[in-house]
Order: sequence, then structure tokens, then C-alpha cells
Amino acid sequence: MEITLDCLPCMLKQVTEASKMATDDTSIHEKIMLDAIGVLSDYKSCRCSPELAEKMHGVVKRHSKNRDPYAAVKLRDIKSAGGVYPLLKSYLHGGDGDLYRALKIAATGNIIDSAIYSSVNIKGCVEDELQKGFVICDIESLEDKLKRAKTLLIIGDNAGETVFDKVLAEYLLRFKISITYAVRSAPIINDATAKEAYESGLDCCADIISTGCGAPGAILEKCGDEFVSLFNSSDLVISKGQGNYEALSDCERNIYFLLKAKCPVISKKLGIKTNDYALYEINKERGRF
Amino acid sequence: MEITLDCLPCMLKQVTEASKMATDDTSIHEKIMLDAIGVLSDYKSCRCSPELAEKMHGVVKRHSKNRDPYAAVKLRDIKSAGGVYPLLKSYLHGGDGDLYRALKIAATGNIIDSAIYSSVNIKGCVEDELQKGFVICDIESLEDKLKRAKTLLIIGDNAGETVFDKVLAEYLLRFKISITYAVRSAPIINDATAKEAYESGLDCCADIISTGCGAPGAILEKCGDEFVSLFNSSDLVISKGQGNYEALSDCERNIYFLLKAKCPVISKKLGIKTNDYALYEINKERGRF
Repeated sequence: MEITLDCLPCMLKQVTEASKMATDDTSIHEKIMLDAIGVLSDYKSCRCSPELAEKMHGVVKRHSKNRDPYAAVKLRDIKSAGGVYPLLKSYLHGGDGDLYRALKIAATGNIIDSAIYSSVNIKGCVEDELQKGFVICDIESLEDKLKRAKTLLIIGDNAGETVFDKVLAEYLLRFKISITYAVRSAPIINDATAKEAYESGLDCCADIISTGCGAPGAILEKCGDEFVSLFNSSDLVISKGQGNYEALSDCERNIYFLLKAKCPVISKKLGIKTNDYALYEINKERGRF
Repeated sequence: MEITLDCLPCMLKQVTEASKMATDDTSIHEKIMLDAIGVLSDYKSCRCSPELAEKMHGVVKRHSKNRDPYAAVKLRDIKSAGGVYPLLKSYLHGGDGDLYRALKIAATGNIIDSAIYSSVNIKGCVEDELQKGFVICDIESLEDKLKRAKTLLIIGDNAGETVFDKVLAEYLLRFKISITYAVRSAPIINDATAKEAYESGLDCCADIISTGCGAPGAILEKCGDEFVSLFNSSDLVISKGQGNYEALSDCERNIYFLLKAKCPVISKKLGIKTNDYALYEINKERGRF
């Protein structure tokens, strides 16, 4: 998906936030801002937003000499998500453990970071979000494929959300399916790397691999051979979050995107409203493995 | 007040909005964005945010050949504000026409643009805002000075807000004071020029003059001689909104800033919360005219 002009101020804002997390040195904040504006002016050289974001946050890391500015945020989010894990399990079993609820839990995980920022009552916030249904919901075909699939690749998104994804992965094991969970190759924003996937306990129900790509979205041209091979050969692919949608929405294989539309650019592209949830299948005809 | 790094993404976002209002031609939006990023990279050459904003919005005007992209917005806002004028008068008289209410009405006018965007019920929104008191309120010294002053300069802010300012100006005439209302010299964002001041009926209670400056804040070094002379000689100056605060907060004369803190940069500077209202006096010792 091409970068829209609306993405540029938003990305610059994220860089100012990241630079404050990376260092308290205001002279470095200024250097970061000037270099980030330079990167922004060359936005057309990037295929998609995640590629530009990787470059912009690279400026933050280089100047601050902090390779993981969001380390504390990720730890906090995994801890908070762990705190609502019993609530998620209880919600799942309350619905006879159905697939819709398992998917909805994983999609809801996408809000854990903003929930922590905006609410003192994280459990209440998660409960409210769980009550909201999918506005796009290609669940029938997904359920049909799950019954026949042997391999599933889940492409992860944020740390903390990983705990919610664990509930989904645990549920999906009943389909006698082998699950691989792919994460970023290096720290980028608050996205999960292998470290955060293990900290979330995902290794108890899935093989954890790196995409080989350090952008906040799996850009195939920049991913490693192991991941690309698995991406092409897996019976099913579930892609989590906006960043992966931006990186993969134009690719040729069948994919289920599981996300909350967090901004007007993505919601407009999907034809839904900002804050709506979607389970959205692309290339349906390519899904008959 | 110096430009903070947090202002830069916000200003770039405003430029993307302005470019959409100025033209539907997406190729021009791209040209605007690239040039605006170029201006942004030189932000240190500007004394304050309004100076940078004038340059950024100058890019929009130049590329789109539209000298007043917010013309329709300003017209809409004045019309909407006119619709709540009876409500404002009724609110003022409900409090025995006291000074606090008159000032609060003028400060509340600052939200008319966002109220129209976010609410179908503008009257309800204005009523709610009127109920919120000033968090900083230097009213005693202002009232004392009003009783002795002969001349008052009000430096205006947005169109629409001008209708609320008219209620204040009408009220202040009881102090037997001569009022001058200063506006931008040229269209910039949704700020009032002489055109919008007259459309709001401000000429019935004040002399309308131009600051001589086209920035969204009265930067004295860029203002005309007539305005600067009046600024220096007026017994009292009331400055409306954030833009004028950013331009004038370091100046040497006594000023009352009347505003709603709309962003974290301004609220932090004033030591209040975002969305709080302030009537804030600077250089108190210089106010003994």
C-alpha cells in the first residue's frame, strides 16, 4: 500500500515521541528532528509506510545510541496484558470457546498500548473493546480453511498484543494445525521481536521465527529466505495490525488481515470507520490449497 | 515564545489539511508537501510558531493559487457563531452582566471551529464550555485597570470567535473606553482579517485595524507602524488565542492573554491542563499607567 501524504505528519509526530523515550538530551532531540525531516523529504523512495518508519526510527536509534527506545514500554505492555490474560480466557470460554471470540481477542490486543495510556482501568477498557464486533468479518472461509489446513503462519504486531495472540494460538491448536509466529528481526517502535514473543509465552503453542525484516510491517522484499519460504508455503496466513497490512495488502497470496483500524488512512482504505475491527481476506481465489 | 519540536509535526498536519481545502488536485498536494517539508527543515530561522506557520501556509497558497483556502470555513464559522449570539447574550445577562462572564464568552469563542467539526449540537457544546471556569484568572487587576483606562486594544484570533469577542467588546463599552480590534493583514488559516471582523459586526463597538502582519500571531517585528504605535500606547491590551500568545509572550509591555490551551505545548508553558481556560497577565508591574 502506497504512502499517503497524511502519513507523513503522523510519522514525524511518532519520531518526536520516540526521541523522548530514547534520550533526555534535548540537543539530540533537535538533531533527530532535523535528520528525520530529511528522511521525510525523500518519502517517495519508500514502497510503503513501514519502510519509511524504519528509516525514521533508525535516525532516533543512531543519534541516541539507544537500539531499543521502547524497551520499557514493551515490558510494561506485556505485563499489563498478562494481567488481563485470565479475563481473556474467561471471555473465550463464556462463548463456548468459539472461533469468533478467539479472533476478536487477538484483534483487541491491538489496543493494549493506547488502553494503558488513556485508562486507569485497563480491564474495563479491554472488556468494552471485546464487546465490539468485527465490521468486516470473513470468518466462514477462514473456519473452512482451518479445518483442512496443516500449517498456519501468524505475522505478529505489537508487544503486549502478543499475549492476546497467545489466546488465539492456543485456541487454534484444536484444529490440529502447526502454528508459526513471525516477529520483527530487530526492535522497532513497540513491535514484538523474538524476545517479546518468548516473554509472552507464545513458544508454548507456536514456533517463533523472525521475518528477517526490521520494519514495522513484513515487507517481503526485505524479509529473510526462511520467512518468505514459509509465507509462500503455509496453508494459511493471518496478518496482525496496520503495519503488516500496509506492507502486505498488495501481495499475491491469500491472507487474512486481523486488525483494528486505528487511523483514517487505513479505515478509508478498508471502507470502514476509524476504531472499527476487521477480519479481512484478500485474494480469496488463491486460498484453495 | 520559541518553537518547540512538538510543534513541527502538528504544523505539517495542518498544512495537509489546508492543501485539501485549497485544491482537489492531488499532484499539487504532493508539491505542497515537499516544499512544506523544506520549510520545516529550516524552522530554526523562525522566531516563533506563527512565523513558521505563515511560511508553511504560504507554500499552500503559492502552489494552489488560492489566497484564502479557509474562506468557506470562516464564513461557516461566523454564521454558526451568529446562531449562538442570542445564547451568549442571555448567558451574560444571566450573571448580571458581570465581567467574568463577558471574558469567559470571548475565551470560549476559541472553540467554535472545533465545536462545529465535532458536534451536531453547537449550542449544547458552547453551553458546556461556558460552564467551565478560568483556571488562571487575573481578573481583579484587569477590572481595576478597566476602571481607569481610556484605550483598549484587543488583538483578535479566529473568524467566528470574532462574534464572541463582539459580546465582550459591547460589554466593555460601559467602562467608557475606546476599543480597537486588530486583525491579520492577510488571510492565514481561519484567522480573522478585517473582512471577517466587519462580517461579525465588530465595527459597531470597536475600531478595526490591521496588525500589518499576515502571520497567525502578532509578531511585533513584522507588524505595521500604526499597530505597533497603538500597541505601545494603549492603556490596556487583551490578546486572544494561542497564536498571539506565542508571538507576544516575551514582549515587554503589560498584556492580558485570553485563551483556551488547545495543545500540550501551550498548557505546559502556562502550567495548566490542555483544554483549560486562562486569563493570564504578563509584566504586571508595567501595567500601572
